[in-house]
Amino acid sequence: MKFGGTSLAGIGRIKCAARHIERECAAGQKVVVVTSAMAGVTDKLIGWMRELSCICDLREYDSVISSGEQVTSGLLSIALQELGISARSWQGWQIPVITDELHGAAHIEKIDGHALHESLNQGHVAVIAGFQGVTPSGRISTLGRGGSDTSAVAIAAALSADRCDIYTDVDGVYTSDPRIVSRACRLDRISYEEMLEFASLGAKVLQTRSVEMAMKYRVPICVRSSFAVPDTFALLPVDGSSFTGTLVCDEDEIMEKQIVSGVTHSMDEAKITLIGLRDKPGISARVFGSLAAANISVDMIVQTVSGGGERTDMTFTVPVSDFDRAMQIIGAIKSDIGYDDLLGSSGIAKISVIGVGMRSHAGVAVKMFKALAELGINIQAITTSEIKISVLIDSAFVELATRVLHSTYGLDSKKEGM
Amino acid sequence: MKFGGTSLAGIGRIKCAARHIERECAAGQKVVVVTSAMAGVTDKLIGWMRELSCICDLREYDSVISSGEQVTSGLLSIALQELGISARSWQGWQIPVITDELHGAAHIEKIDGHALHESLNQGHVAVIAGFQGVTPSGRISTLGRGGSDTSAVAIAAALSADRCDIYTDVDGVYTSDPRIVSRACRLDRISYEEMLEFASLGAKVLQTRSVEMAMKYRVPICVRSSFAVPDTFALLPVDGSSFTGTLVCDEDEIMEKQIVSGVTHSMDEAKITLIGLRDKPGISARVFGSLAAANISVDMIVQTVSGGGERTDMTFTVPVSDFDRAMQIIGAIKSDIGYDDLLGSSGIAKISVIGVGMRSHAGVAVKMFKALAELGINIQAITTSEIKISVLIDSAFVELATRVLHSTYGLDSKKEGM
Repeated sequence: MKFGGTSLAGIGRIKCAARHIERECAAGQKVVVVTSAMAGVTDKLIGWMRELSCICDLREYDSVISSGEQVTSGLLSIALQELGISARSWQGWQIPVITDELHGAAHIEKIDGHALHESLNQGHVAVIAGFQGVTPSGRISTLGRGGSDTSAVAIAAALSADRCDIYTDVDGVYTSDPRIVSRACRLDRISYEEMLEFASLGAKVLQTRSVEMAMKYRVPICVRSSFAVPDTFALLPVDGSSFTGTLVCDEDEIMEKQIVSGVTHSMDEAKITLIGLRDKPGISARVFGSLAAANISVDMIVQTVSGGGERTDMTFTVPVSDFDRAMQIIGAIKSDIGYDDLLGSSGIAKISVIGVGMRSHAGVAVKMFKALAELGINIQAITTSEIKISVLIDSAFVELATRVLHSTYGLDSKKEGM
Repeated sequence: MKFGGTSLAGIGRIKCAARHIERECAAGQKVVVVTSAMAGVTDKLIGWMRELSCICDLREYDSVISSGEQVTSGLLSIALQELGISARSWQGWQIPVITDELHGAAHIEKIDGHALHESLNQGHVAVIAGFQGVTPSGRISTLGRGGSDTSAVAIAAALSADRCDIYTDVDGVYTSDPRIVSRACRLDRISYEEMLEFASLGAKVLQTRSVEMAMKYRVPICVRSSFAVPDTFALLPVDGSSFTGTLVCDEDEIMEKQIVSGVTHSMDEAKITLIGLRDKPGISARVFGSLAAANISVDMIVQTVSGGGERTDMTFTVPVSDFDRAMQIIGAIKSDIGYDDLLGSSGIAKISVIGVGMRSHAGVAVKMFKALAELGINIQAITTSEIKISVLIDSAFVELATRVLHSTYGLDSKKEGM
């Protein structure tokens, strides 16, 4: 059971999390808990470090920010003991969770489950500080922002847990953003592959790395709300069976597959267009090589032929946060690569439809393009994967397009097929 | 160099502490730093735990509160690196500082100085999270409130340091409380024995345990202000020679001994009087035995004969915080021990004069009693040690008595003898 920052933000929320754990214990489960820091704490600590230094020693950074999870793991253990449940906290170095030396964004190399197993067999609930580990040289490391999801999945894998429950401030994964699509539905089940697309396309429910790891080790993840029915724990069935949430699992375990499971949108990209680019071998490599050298990742790329065939127009997208830097870089190599004009715009949105079913169904893309055309929305770029189609449109149409596509693929009402 | 909570309260103060360390490094010292938590942080964490539980698991308590020092050790390391000084943080378990299992008030059993020495020899400043250690079973332990003084002295002893500098919000140990005695002077030197009396009598400069440990291992302590001249570090002599402070050291190293080094006062005690107590063997043992069983320590005791010799009056003092409990306990055993009346009062003050010189000088006590008598102040009880005389008086006279005794023993002007 992993609890996120909003699920542990304050003593009241911590008591509430303890009640969720109590329910699972009462159902006879051996429970391991992974905590995040209280919402806001990590940002406060990072703020202090920024005040001291622009680029601080990441070993010290890790030591400072890991303190947030240390606090919540201890507080939650105390809350459990108050409910009469035997519990103890574990820091990354106490287990130990061994990581590499890549401080600030470390990778877990090995989790020794021996001490944890022993403690569980003695009837204790283990409350583990998430997000942190220890390097072979004995320094505290952290897994990068949102890393406690990854901690939870890694520990579930190491202990061969039956399930990894991620408690958060939403009650599952939705077919679309409910703030935009009022008829969005919670998915009962979703495959790892689809969840990966959802996660990397801006649905903030699970960290991408944690989904990759869950897929690799076949750990079923259940996304649940810690905020649901906080005052009526006693009325809930102890086996948690009727508890609402989304199960992220193997594709094979999903009986009734939808062709499309969801429609996501992202406003996090900006568009850069090079007009009249010389159409010669090696030019693209130079454009994207210079961006890659600056650690800027490019998402969608569209190239069209213009004029007499010697010149072309090229459009690509970069993260909004890297937009200014990318414009400078392309501006600086103008004389080298040769183009007539450089245009940039951040007023764009990316809409994606996702579904493992599209592997075996033709016509999914056509349906999308037709629906957008009927609305008079121009598609500025397209990318596809085996289970995803993304298009770039004017950001003014983002809500409209998302709602219409949600209806188009029959997601508005759960019982209906496509 | 140990920095207290007010000396690290906020990023500005942490930068200031880093400048003090820079000065010592520039003078060619190998520096080990011990940090407290930022002022207020430990109390906030304790508040959260109290909200969860009245009597929480002290192992979890230790894990939670030790996070405060973890944060400051990391932040101060970053601040030092910004000044171009190689530094790294050390948690108790990383050194390790091995303690017993008495969580919440653990005792240091062993400090392995090997890794620290190696790091120092490589030219790194070691920034150690104070107040914390690790038990043989691998749990985080803490040394009790104010324990980072003890950490600092213990680490200084383990590393055979030349000196242990305690940076705090006052610039040394004074002959009396400057808020009451405007003519109080900072002492250049004070013996461990005297400092122990000062510490246990309410001068909050150093924790008693740290002084005991410094005395045992002969670690010279220098009490200094981290607030002094924060903006003029560059103007100070790098060897720190003209830096003001108080050296706590061996009696032998103090050339010009004062007979009395200071006058302290304490309002932390309350007085309990038993009127008409049966004057029989074993009665005192029952009174004080019942208090000891409740973990209440009794300080001063006065017994006088009254009436026909079969009855006596007895007065003793207890800490103000235990006053109500003590009154209840004595009330409950009334039928057992037999007395006429039970009186209690918290409106009292204890005034003490302290000095190693009084071992070899007669008349120190007489001078005190005479001075108080001239002011018409009644002495309600007296206790003495080899180097201290304490009297109990009405709290209304505490400022007056302290000021007059300060003058009486010639402490007002440093240059004058007694």
